Amino acid sequence: MQTLVQHPTSFLDAIVAPAELKKLSINELRSLAEEIRSEIVRNLNKTGGHLASNLGIVEITLALHYVFDSPKDQILWDVGHQAYVHKMLTGRRDRFHTLRQFKGISGFIHPQESEHDAFIAGHSSTSVSLAVGMALARDHLEQDHKVIALIGDGGLTGGMALEALNHLGDIQRDVLILLNDNEMSISENVGGISQYMKRIKETYFYKDIKEKITMLEGQLDGMSLTPAVWKLIESVKQEATERIDTPGIVFEKLGINYSGPIDGHDVGAVIEVFQKVKAERVPLIAHLITQKGKGFDPAERDSIKYHGVKKAFSLEPRVEPAADKKPKAKTYSDIFTDTLIELAELEPNLVAITPATAEGSGLVKFGKVYPERFFDVAICEQHGVTMAAGMAKAGLKPVVSIYSTFLQRAMDQVIHDVAIMNLPVVFGIDRGGLVEDGETHQGVFDIAYLRSVPNFTVLAPKDAVELRNMLYTVVKELHGPVAIRFPREEAVNAATEQVGFAKVDFSSWEVEHKGDDEVVILAYGAMVKSSLDALDAMKAGGVNATIINARSVKPLDEATLTRYLNQPNTKIITLEEGCSSGGFGAAVLEFRSRAVYSKPQVRLAEVVGLGVPDRFIEHGNRSILMDEVGLSPAKIASFVIDFVRVRG
Amino acid sequence: MQTLVQHPTSFLDAIVAPAELKKLSINELRSLAEEIRSEIVRNLNKTGGHLASNLGIVEITLALHYVFDSPKDQILWDVGHQAYVHKMLTGRRDRFHTLRQFKGISGFIHPQESEHDAFIAGHSSTSVSLAVGMALARDHLEQDHKVIALIGDGGLTGGMALEALNHLGDIQRDVLILLNDNEMSISENVGGISQYMKRIKETYFYKDIKEKITMLEGQLDGMSLTPAVWKLIESVKQEATERIDTPGIVFEKLGINYSGPIDGHDVGAVIEVFQKVKAERVPLIAHLITQKGKGFDPAERDSIKYHGVKKAFSLEPRVEPAADKKPKAKTYSDIFTDTLIELAELEPNLVAITPATAEGSGLVKFGKVYPERFFDVAICEQHGVTMAAGMAKAGLKPVVSIYSTFLQRAMDQVIHDVAIMNLPVVFGIDRGGLVEDGETHQGVFDIAYLRSVPNFTVLAPKDAVELRNMLYTVVKELHGPVAIRFPREEAVNAATEQVGFAKVDFSSWEVEHKGDDEVVILAYGAMVKSSLDALDAMKAGGVNATIINARSVKPLDEATLTRYLNQPNTKIITLEEGCSSGGFGAAVLEFRSRAVYSKPQVRLAEVVGLGVPDRFIEHGNRSILMDEVGLSPAKIASFVIDFVRVRG
Repeated sequence: MQTLVQHPTSFLDAIVAPAELKKLSINELRSLAEEIRSEIVRNLNKTGGHLASNLGIVEITLALHYVFDSPKDQILWDVGHQAYVHKMLTGRRDRFHTLRQFKGISGFIHPQESEHDAFIAGHSSTSVSLAVGMALARDHLEQDHKVIALIGDGGLTGGMALEALNHLGDIQRDVLILLNDNEMSISENVGGISQYMKRIKETYFYKDIKEKITMLEGQLDGMSLTPAVWKLIESVKQEATERIDTPGIVFEKLGINYSGPIDGHDVGAVIEVFQKVKAERVPLIAHLITQKGKGFDPAERDSIKYHGVKKAFSLEPRVEPAADKKPKAKTYSDIFTDTLIELAELEPNLVAITPATAEGSGLVKFGKVYPERFFDVAICEQHGVTMAAGMAKAGLKPVVSIYSTFLQRAMDQVIHDVAIMNLPVVFGIDRGGLVEDGETHQGVFDIAYLRSVPNFTVLAPKDAVELRNMLYTVVKELHGPVAIRFPREEAVNAATEQVGFAKVDFSSWEVEHKGDDEVVILAYGAMVKSSLDALDAMKAGGVNATIINARSVKPLDEATLTRYLNQPNTKIITLEEGCSSGGFGAAVLEFRSRAVYSKPQVRLAEVVGLGVPDRFIEHGNRSILMDEVGLSPAKIASFVIDFVRVRG
Repeated sequence: MQTLVQHPTSFLDAIVAPAELKKLSINELRSLAEEIRSEIVRNLNKTGGHLASNLGIVEITLALHYVFDSPKDQILWDVGHQAYVHKMLTGRRDRFHTLRQFKGISGFIHPQESEHDAFIAGHSSTSVSLAVGMALARDHLEQDHKVIALIGDGGLTGGMALEALNHLGDIQRDVLILLNDNEMSISENVGGISQYMKRIKETYFYKDIKEKITMLEGQLDGMSLTPAVWKLIESVKQEATERIDTPGIVFEKLGINYSGPIDGHDVGAVIEVFQKVKAERVPLIAHLITQKGKGFDPAERDSIKYHGVKKAFSLEPRVEPAADKKPKAKTYSDIFTDTLIELAELEPNLVAITPATAEGSGLVKFGKVYPERFFDVAICEQHGVTMAAGMAKAGLKPVVSIYSTFLQRAMDQVIHDVAIMNLPVVFGIDRGGLVEDGETHQGVFDIAYLRSVPNFTVLAPKDAVELRNMLYTVVKELHGPVAIRFPREEAVNAATEQVGFAKVDFSSWEVEHKGDDEVVILAYGAMVKSSLDALDAMKAGGVNATIINARSVKPLDEATLTRYLNQPNTKIITLEEGCSSGGFGAAVLEFRSRAVYSKPQVRLAEVVGLGVPDRFIEHGNRSILMDEVGLSPAKIASFVIDFVRVRG
């Protein structure tokens, strides 16, 4: 199974719908599992995708569809990037080669693809809440089916999953929670819960004390003990039975029944447990132990590296993935981490925080250099942000590295704990803008929601050099909260040699290209490069626009804006890789509107904006998506030419 | 203590700083506690405020300041409305009569008031994260002090508190968590954790089994047992000691040491525990049992009613609060709940969800009529919203009642679980706009952040009648997410007799007052009434503005907007009780900007906006605050006259 040997797929070929599964024997399911693993490795070698987690969940998925009846029984997949096997078994095998590609099948759970995808998934820790909601609906509508949440041990550290468990323990509805415990989220797991789960597995011996008392009874059987002594023994035995620590005691204390631990790769054992719990009508957690990367040697050995794979990864064990052979261009994440490592030397109180995205953000490298100043808080964005606020209040300089889409989880903490106190917490907002993953992961709301929060400084660099200098400036100088957002992309000018740092004046934008004064593009972050790339096409269309690097949405460069606004014939265009409602464009319009209020009799230049349209953006290659939403250099050029030449 | 009898305050008079406390004996502390209770009741009778929770925490607060050294030791108060005693003991007694008043002392923890307020508080469940952050900072900076989080059993149900416990259990830093367990948040608590805490108190008997085994050993002592049998007994005893269920086992399993339960009103016992744990250098929860309203009979009997009191509440036991004697004007919350009750009859699948604000939102009344269709999920906004999404997907019509400021906790769930799936979840957004409580509770961001989310409809009614009809329309007709926001205020036209419902067309605004066509006020929600109230002053200033009820920010009434925009000499003014960045005003400016793009050669009317300025707004009476931020009728009139007559 570890190499490219072409396995037969005779069992898999027969599964056109989950019902077919039910005809197989346990041994046949084992063969099917092998076929599936082989096909996943082959397919992901072509498309890239989440490898290790899907290899880890083959048997659980088979057992799920063997015992339960999807879509009548509702299966909620937490995060949903581990549902490839589910997709293959529910009629999407023939489209599997289009995985994560534009207009191809999604890398996550996606109800529009199949009735077997009961709810969207993408972010972590939502499945138990969804299951509780669906179970309450089922009971209210007097329906009869199972609601099943499949969550990882990483997802269980998310606060909302714990809120849901707490509620479920109270209302005691029929919800089955499958805990897929592989001791990992994307990186290694942290937290008391995770260590508790570990101890369940390592030291589990709850039968011992009961067995020992029974043995003791046997030993004492021949003795002439008084009835009172026998009664005492009986009472000790009963209490030991009732009140002794059991492996699932934390769940049981919260009102959730517990079954496990179960070997999640023993398909027969998993089926047996599922069949047993199917008839239960109570909240129940089945604790399944699995191994990420199971059955594919390189992934078993390094499941972090093989969490998500690019195309053409190595299929041989112990060999670096092929993509690693040529030196990779540095991403903004790389520049961010490298800079933090440099700054940490200058600034002894700088600490870095990540909510379980140390790998994706590159911050793992920081953790290796400064283990004592690196905090992975697990999938706990809320806790991470408020913890950073506490650190800042107490004299540290916390830098929170977080994906734009995940910062949505901590909006209240950003407002309530960081901004009201005006604390110097730096947010490095990774994956700001469009990403390959699709609707659930698009980082398009951050500009709009952060700039509406008082005390915030909201920045985006045009390139690697500016990112570096921005970070330096905010770490050295600023006294309130700052967000610096950058896309999931190779950094512009990443190769430029950097020695030392230069301060950046945020309230002063800079001219990137001096064109005509009558067409001015205000470009934010990654849009600087895109508009420079659009220059030739614009010129071909008769427009030589001036391009400004509008590096700060908050504060705005009021002097520059005022100058251009006071030229009534100038056409101003704002460009941003963020939602077109309330973002950078709105900030400039609001500024213009204040200028109108000050001097209503003066005619000002008009401003139009281009951003991500008001709909959720699907998955696919980032440059395809950028074109789709109208933000590719070609589309930018058309937009500008259309405004200036055609209509203007 | 139950009546208005004037108690002496000789002990309290001597406490000018916490250090004075340390000189008192335990008996003197008991007398002090009585003086404090008496003073709180007398004071709140004048100012209003949070009564029951503060009466419940007198002894804990005394013990805190007796044993620890604030501000060196850092005390983090969760929520912070239970810190009145703390305020009285830390130099703010003389200003206590200004509680919650504009420019007076805040009803919450407020670092600007005192160095003894270590961090802002207002929202629930933040204290453990802050304590973890501050403890990490202390250790990094090699300081030596205690970090103490004081959290209620209600706060402990919040996901971020659970995230923080999980992290703390992992990193094992010195943090003391004081769990003030009164079995209540604002309403009664729900959830598995809460029931677990209850069982700790009710059935706690962990010594039994160890004692019984020792008794058994005694009984068997004279017998001629083999060494093997003795060894067996010893081993049973050891396991029973080590592995038996203990009261704090859930915390201990997560790596947090547990001490308790402790009677939180026995000041001597609390001090003893605090002195013992002061020397510990590990994470530890001290579980303190208290009673809300302790020492004041009416509040002990009904701590929900006496959670927050208005001025001049009854000081006599068993008598209704004086304020209840005259019929109260209906608030928007009342109208919302009454309407939901009516609609629930028409719509059997309508269910209502509240995150522990059933009292404040009035929804408790719905719960009495429809207990099976009412879900209080505890202080779990995230879970509540995603649960609603699950319900909607499964065929129910969930209505989530939530305060604007608390919806910030569930932004990701709104986007990820409700909006992407375009599910018909109705959000009744209470306390939209300014509230008495101050910075932490201002509901000013919802318009901006909700309108940037695709698929959302974002509404605000001008009065009670419209709220009623909006709710009817969205419950009957809409197919995607809807937010309806209303202020904490007596409803306009609450007394208007209502029979049946009328549909509202959201994409069509209505003219409230037909004035000159050249000055048009677009007023959102509560601003309709405010601008009508400003009419006379505007007319006196020479402006007879047309006033439009712009009931929907999303969708906009494009036809009306286009008509006014096409009158280049018209002056358009947007009014909103929300942040001026990215809100309703920005929506209109963006629409105007799209019109500019379509026809750059056409001159359009200009738009200016008035909203809540870009700073955090302090506490105080709502009408004072409205004037402070420029949204009182008088200030609105000045703004409009200034724009139209002075500058225009």
